Formats: sequence, structure tokens, C-alpha cells
Amino acid sequence: MQRNITAEILSIGDELLYGQIQDTNSHWISQQLDGIGVKVIRRTTVGDERKSILAAFAASASVADIILMTGGLGPTRDDLTKPLLAEYFQSDLVLVPEALEAIQGFFNKRGRELTSTNRQQAYLPEKCTYVHNPVGTAPGMWFEKDGKVWMSMPGVPHEMRYLMENFVIPKIKDIFPLPIIYHKMIKTVGIGESWLSDMISDWESSLPSHIKLAYLPSLGEVRLRLTATGNDQGTLANDVEKQVEKLLPLISKYVYGYNQDTLATVIGQLLNQRKKKLALAESCSGGYIAHLITGVAGSSDYFNGAIVPYHNTFKENVLGVRQHTLINHGAVSEETVIEMATKVREKFQADFGLSSSGIAGPGGGTADKPVGLVWIACSSTDGCFTRKLQLTEDRMVNIQLTATAALNLLRQTILKETE
Amino acid sequence: MQRNITAEILSIGDELLYGQIQDTNSHWISQQLDGIGVKVIRRTTVGDERKSILAAFAASASVADIILMTGGLGPTRDDLTKPLLAEYFQSDLVLVPEALEAIQGFFNKRGRELTSTNRQQAYLPEKCTYVHNPVGTAPGMWFEKDGKVWMSMPGVPHEMRYLMENFVIPKIKDIFPLPIIYHKMIKTVGIGESWLSDMISDWESSLPSHIKLAYLPSLGEVRLRLTATGNDQGTLANDVEKQVEKLLPLISKYVYGYNQDTLATVIGQLLNQRKKKLALAESCSGGYIAHLITGVAGSSDYFNGAIVPYHNTFKENVLGVRQHTLINHGAVSEETVIEMATKVREKFQADFGLSSSGIAGPGGGTADKPVGLVWIACSSTDGCFTRKLQLTEDRMVNIQLTATAALNLLRQTILKETE
Repeated sequence: MQRNITAEILSIGDELLYGQIQDTNSHWISQQLDGIGVKVIRRTTVGDERKSILAAFAASASVADIILMTGGLGPTRDDLTKPLLAEYFQSDLVLVPEALEAIQGFFNKRGRELTSTNRQQAYLPEKCTYVHNPVGTAPGMWFEKDGKVWMSMPGVPHEMRYLMENFVIPKIKDIFPLPIIYHKMIKTVGIGESWLSDMISDWESSLPSHIKLAYLPSLGEVRLRLTATGNDQGTLANDVEKQVEKLLPLISKYVYGYNQDTLATVIGQLLNQRKKKLALAESCSGGYIAHLITGVAGSSDYFNGAIVPYHNTFKENVLGVRQHTLINHGAVSEETVIEMATKVREKFQADFGLSSSGIAGPGGGTADKPVGLVWIACSSTDGCFTRKLQLTEDRMVNIQLTATAALNLLRQTILKETE
Repeated sequence: MQRNITAEILSIGDELLYGQIQDTNSHWISQQLDGIGVKVIRRTTVGDERKSILAAFAASASVADIILMTGGLGPTRDDLTKPLLAEYFQSDLVLVPEALEAIQGFFNKRGRELTSTNRQQAYLPEKCTYVHNPVGTAPGMWFEKDGKVWMSMPGVPHEMRYLMENFVIPKIKDIFPLPIIYHKMIKTVGIGESWLSDMISDWESSLPSHIKLAYLPSLGEVRLRLTATGNDQGTLANDVEKQVEKLLPLISKYVYGYNQDTLATVIGQLLNQRKKKLALAESCSGGYIAHLITGVAGSSDYFNGAIVPYHNTFKENVLGVRQHTLINHGAVSEETVIEMATKVREKFQADFGLSSSGIAGPGGGTADKPVGLVWIACSSTDGCFTRKLQLTEDRMVNIQLTATAALNLLRQTILKETE
């Protein structure tokens, strides 16, 4: 088989080394390269320091075909990537009119003045190919030398992603002979990694050698990724789909989607197909479920609205939960989430009403209602379904797990799979 | 001045390079080392491959005094760190009775049988110091050679943290003469990095050589980090605070907090101090502002609740915006956000009502109301203040920028700094 095309990911910035920013870029870039069959062989992070950056350039060139850099492109003094690339490629910094135009446009659009510092960003190494960055002011820079390619991108995640998706990935696919890879992601929710692996272990051991399985757990979800490597896309797709057919019966009730699907996008599709509307009453999840739903483009087609009655008074006044219920059962109770779901469904004239109430923590726990206790409910024409959750001590983790469990309860209710 | 004590952080594992697991360990270790004045000069991630790992060992030894490794210590065949450390330090693997005892204890405690694979974990390079790991089965390994120290730790975050806190950090402080480091982060909002740098360039050039400045931009915010290095904590704190005093007058209206502060925590403090309550009416931000507010522990003390009237019908029915306003001015208008903010403030009996309405995109834009157009308003006893924003084409970015701008408008309203 042909040799691997290799890549090094280079992250530049003191803020990374000092632990002030978590480097999510390298992780994301790794996933993208893996997805197109490029083998990431190393990731290196260095600070804003001439010697280390130049050493990293040389080290990368010695091991990888593709060198992808992020960071150090800001207009300020501590940003060294651009001048050092110019030095490394023995190239002068010259004004690139297109770049200046783009930066000017970026500022005009926002009705802001272009400063001399911003103008500097239009000066690029003569030997690089200018790559337009419409979502920021730092241009991308593409270099080719000795059969290796280099790309320098801003460290701002959405700018880096734009350049990767619209320029780098297509360009790499175009230049390098990459093996044919077929990925299929099976998305599961509501079951832990070890239980899942026990349920599918026979199937897993029967996988052909050209298909690999990876478990990718995240909060409340486990993604199963099948990766087939070979020479023909059609054959690989076929091989993988055959395996998925065998897998599904084993775990069908936990599978909510594939590949780019998220619980929020899948729910959007289910509601649109049925022309149904959704409303939310969020207490402990505090608006996070609404954020996940409205993060999906077009969600206004099926999402009517939400109420976050954070203080109990307003569970009563604004949402209409009966005082009697709150007093006799408390805000964190099955009775309360049922009324929350039902009332919000009425108020927003929706087909489904989803609610949450719990103790997110770290404070507020009691002996009978400890931190991490959460009730969720989904009200529909088929009735109201509830779940009791006992989560963690961590507030943010509890908010996320509540949202995942609630969205899954909604999904099951729409599909009438609540048992 | 004494030279820096330097460290390299080495993460080992294919799952990192393939983007299957986000490497949070390096980030956490960076923070710990930074906190004790060790200069992290590089972070490297390599896969489970003999050649790359040995090369990484040699490269680390050539640049750092301290080499901290995580990963590759599992009992399975693809875990190479231990055998390769033995090879690198020309040392045989020998059974360490204490290690075996610890592993046995770990399994007994869980009523599980010790497998031969697990027994292997008790074999360690003869030249290393065995480091007890009570929270897992992979022991830590400490090496000292040519004035450099090496520590190998499991990749499981809580195991790594235990070993760092209970062994590595104290040991490093004990062995190396560490400088004193003092950090101060100044958090700004509502101004871009380049404008900021223009406003403070004179101050920046006048900084003493032992104080360094870094710009850390993120969506809608820029953090300024001052780092002072020396021998006395008190003196450094003093030096830095003096500089901050000089800096503040130049950018006071943009500074919202320091160090760990976020807009949401600062707003929480401002509201608590004044015993004031907050309510939200979110359209285009879709619950994200509520999520940021409720992400703060104790937010129930000052956050009464939110309404997300996503569909226009409910801006009227649930929130009480006048039909007349929606028809004559549209949902995305100054008039509408003013009514949203005022109505939600009334409904939730709050002192401040904050609202947003805009076109998040990618669809829904028109000639006079393009994607990225957002109106925000903050209603208070002093009146209602509004801002018009023209943001980006990216839905998620628009949601985040809207939240940041709205929280800042709220902060200014509370402080009566709205001009």
C-alpha cells in the first residue's frame, strides 16, 4: 500500500503553554485530517519566542509532508509567526493589495476605522500564497517547498475552521495521493461505554481487518466510529453499511443518529417531518436546552419558545405551576416538572413541552434532595413522560447531562418509544 | 537574574493524534507548572509508535530540565511508554514488590481478580523511582539523569492529577530553585485587540523588562495578561499593580474585571451588592444569555428568569409586546427590543430587563435587515438603553457576540455608565 501522507500540527502562543487557553484547535484539526486519511504524526505547541518557533519549523519539516500552524498572527508585538515564516522561507514582507482590500472591507462593514496596526496585517511574506479570511482580519498564508506544504492560520477557532474547510482540506485532497477512507459515525445516547462494548463485543471481534472501530465517549453520549480503508469508495461504503446493519439490532434503542447529526438537529428533523412544535420550561438547565435547539439553523420553524422560571415565584406567576404543587412536593419533584411541561406546552401552543428542575449544585442540596438530583418531563398529546436523574457534584456537568437526557426523552416521546 | 527552570510536557497516545480524545492533561499541567514558576517551553504529542516516542524523549532532554509524560502506560500491547523508558535509560524491567502489592490491593478492594496483564504493570525500569498511584493500576515512574528529572504518569486525568499534586509538584519545588512569578489578567470587552494596542502602546513600551504583556483575544473580549518574574512575591505584586494603575485610566470603560472574572460573574456581584434582580427576553440569542448567567453558582439569588419568545406570535402572547409594534417596526427593531426588555422586567418583577432580537443567520436576511443585524436593549429604573449591532454571517458566532454585547450593556446600565 502507498505510504502515509503525514502531518504535524503546530500551535503557537504563550497563552497555550501557560495554560491560559485550552488548545481546542489541534484537537479539531486532528479530527479533520484523520477524516481525509492524513496521518497526524505529531502535535507541537511552542510559545511566542523566536528560537523555539524556528526550531519547530525545522523539526516539522523533517518529519511531515503537511505542516498546519495556528496562532501568533495577531496585529500586536507579541505575535511572531508571520515575521518568522518570512525569515524561514527567506522572503520579504510585502503589501498584498487584495489582503489590504479584504481587511478594509472587514472594517468598513462594521463601520470602523482601519488603524495602522491593522494595515500591518496586509503585509505578507513574498513567497506565500495569500489566503482570504472573510471572517477575520488575519489572512491565511500557504507555502509550498521541497514537496511539503505549510499553512499558517489564526488561532481564533472559527477563523481557523473557515480556512480549513474552505481552503486547506480541499487543497490537501487535491495535492496528495490520499488513501480512500470511509468513516461512519453511529451516535448513541443513554448508555455508558463499557455497557455498550459488552453488548457489541461479538460483533466487534467479527469486524473485517480493513474496518476499525473507535469509541468516542462524551458527556451522556458515546459515538461509535467505523473507519474503512481501501481503494474504492463504493466498496468501502458498502462494507461499512453491511456492518452497521448487523450492529443496529444490538443497540437500536440507543442510536439517535449518524455522522454530523446531533440530538438537536435530529429533533428538528423529527418535528419538521411531523409539522409539530416545541416549547421548553427550563429550571436547572437554565436556558441551555433552548440554546442547543436554537443553535440549529431553521429552528424557528418548529421551536415556539421557552420560559426559564429560575426563581420559584415565577414557576407560579409566569409559568402557572400551582402553588399547592410547589409547596407540597417542592420545585424539584416529578409533580412540578409535569406541570411545568404541560403549562409551557399550553402557553406556547406547542405539541411537545419539555421541562427540567433539579439541584445543579454546588450548593442547595439536602439529605433527601442531594446535589445532582434532577427531574425532567416531556408533555405530549400521548401524555406526559418523566425521568429522575441522579447526576454529579459538578454544576456545568449537571447542566449538560440534564440537557442531553431531556432531549433524548423528547426524542423518545416524538418517536413514541417511551416505555 | 537566575535562569528559567524549563519543562516539556509529553503526551503519548494515538487517540490524541487522531482527535478521538481532547488532551486536557497538557492544559492542566501547564497551569500547575506556571503557578510554581516553571517555564513550560514546549508541549509535544506523539502516537503509540517506538520511533516517535524515542525521538520525543531525546528532543525533550535537549531543551528542558523537567520532562512530564502522560499516557501509554496501560496494560495492553499498544502501550509503549514503559518499555521505551527502560530502553532509553538502559534499564531492565524488574518486578517491584510494592507496586504488585498496590495493584493487588486495588483489585481486591473492588473484588476483582488480578490478571497476568495487570501483573505486568508491577514491572518497572530498574533505574526509576516507583511512585505509588492509589487511584489507579499504573504506577508513576520518576527518573533523574544529567540534572534533568522525568516523570511518567497515566493519561487518565484524575490519576495524573493525584500524582502531580501529591508527588511531582512538591518534588520539583524541592529540587529546583524556582523564580517567583506574579500574573494579573485584565479583562476587557467591547473593543478590538488592535484598537486596544493602539490606545496603550506608549504604556506598553514603558513596561519594565521583568513585566511582560500578552493579548488574549476571544469572541467580543480581549484579555490583557501581565506576567512579572523576580524573587519576591510582594515586590512583584506591587510592580504589577503600579502598572495596572497606569493602564486603567487609558481603557477604564472597557475593563470589566480581573483574573478569573467573567462578565456573568461580575454582573452577579454587581446585582448582589445592590440587591437587584435580573430578567431576560431572548430572541436571537435563544437562551444563551440565560445559560451564561445560570452557569454561575448562586445565580438564583439575583436571576429571576427568562422568556425566549422565539416565534413572533409569542413575543405578543407570552411576553406582551404590542402587535402594533411588531407590525410597524418588525421583530428586529429598536422599538421591539425596548418593549421586550420592559415587559420581561415587569413580568419577573426585576430591576433590570435585558433583551435581544436579530437575524442570527444563515437564512432570514433581507436588504434592509441583513444577516448579523441585532438589536439589544436593557430596561432599568433609569430608563431603557439600546445598541444596534452588525455582526457576522456565522450563526454561532452571532449568538455568542450578541450575548457578550448584551451582558456588557447590562453591566454598563447597572454601573450607570451608558452614554
